[in-house]
Amino acid sequence: MTTLFISPGACSLASHVAVRELALPIQVERVALRTADSPIHAINPLGRVPALQLDDGTVLTENSAILPYLADLVPGTPLFAPAGSVERAQIQGWLGYLAAEVHAASFRPLNRPERYSADTGAHDGIRAQARVQLYRAFEHIERHLENRTWLVGERFTLADAYLGVFSLWLGRIGGEFEQLTAVARLRQAFLGRAAVREALGVEGLA
Amino acid sequence: MTTLFISPGACSLASHVAVRELALPIQVERVALRTADSPIHAINPLGRVPALQLDDGTVLTENSAILPYLADLVPGTPLFAPAGSVERAQIQGWLGYLAAEVHAASFRPLNRPERYSADTGAHDGIRAQARVQLYRAFEHIERHLENRTWLVGERFTLADAYLGVFSLWLGRIGGEFEQLTAVARLRQAFLGRAAVREALGVEGLA
Repeated sequence: MTTLFISPGACSLASHVAVRELALPIQVERVALRTADSPIHAINPLGRVPALQLDDGTVLTENSAILPYLADLVPGTPLFAPAGSVERAQIQGWLGYLAAEVHAASFRPLNRPERYSADTGAHDGIRAQARVQLYRAFEHIERHLENRTWLVGERFTLADAYLGVFSLWLGRIGGEFEQLTAVARLRQAFLGRAAVREALGVEGLA
Repeated sequence: MTTLFISPGACSLASHVAVRELALPIQVERVALRTADSPIHAINPLGRVPALQLDDGTVLTENSAILPYLADLVPGTPLFAPAGSVERAQIQGWLGYLAAEVHAASFRPLNRPERYSADTGAHDGIRAQARVQLYRAFEHIERHLENRTWLVGERFTLADAYLGVFSLWLGRIGGEFEQLTAVARLRQAFLGRAAVREALGVEGLA
């Protein structure tokens, strides 16, 4: 059976939400991260989630690839748009921005400064700069959401499934991030969805 | 006319190569980066390339979205695969990995440590760790390429157009990166393509 490997509250929650939004017959399996004996290492040599294992054993990685793959299993779903359409490219563009600028370039140095310098004395400075960077990355999203509920096409799409997860992470930081009222509004709309509440329940976070 | 905005040698070279591989009637316009008066700011508020401006003024961003959009303009192209296919998800997965892990999480702190700490005394340590991180990110690619010429499906795809650019960047670093012989082989195969040589010529890099 096709299996999605996740870790509670990690960015894999985006793919987990998509599985439930699309009502796909996919098993969701929780794994530990950053432990040498986690079963994830046998699935994904990078030891990361999300990882989607297909029936033939093929493993897909990266939210920016798994989310489109899942949506394409349900042709015509409002979560995505047809190949060749501008809307599809806009949704894919937000997936790319969220993966690279929000997650890899901002949240990661904020949460794991040790990956950016072996000198522990530098870690406070890295965290402080990551917070500035994260705010800038979200200001771009805030401006875009000023007159919109969702990122693309006035409906909930894959882009919002992914942004919803980061909006939850942001909610735990507080401080200057509380000024991002459009992002906070999206977070509430995200949490209002049945599929999101179900996914959070399964991950033990509801 | 549809216009692709690039900066010579930047990661926008991937989308530029795809335009030529696909023989698309798209104008390529060079812009300066990181200067306040660059015309790119009027196109992409993030001031970044690649940016693809469509005939109606819509602007698409992120290689991981522009590359699929370009390929979908030529249904059946060997550079990509049909929506819903596993191959398409694998190609998209590499685009995501290259954008997030190779570019944002490794090359960026190596080249622009000031974006990771305001403390200039920390920059050497950030560069050193970024180099370690970059090597790890490429070891994963090296292992995958051991018995292959290209990343997916034994043919040149969008994933290779993107990896080709980073393999050029890597070639300029030298040192331990010269041990990555499969990546070096891909670089040579990339440079052997007519579309790549044309794109490099237009960017003034040939």
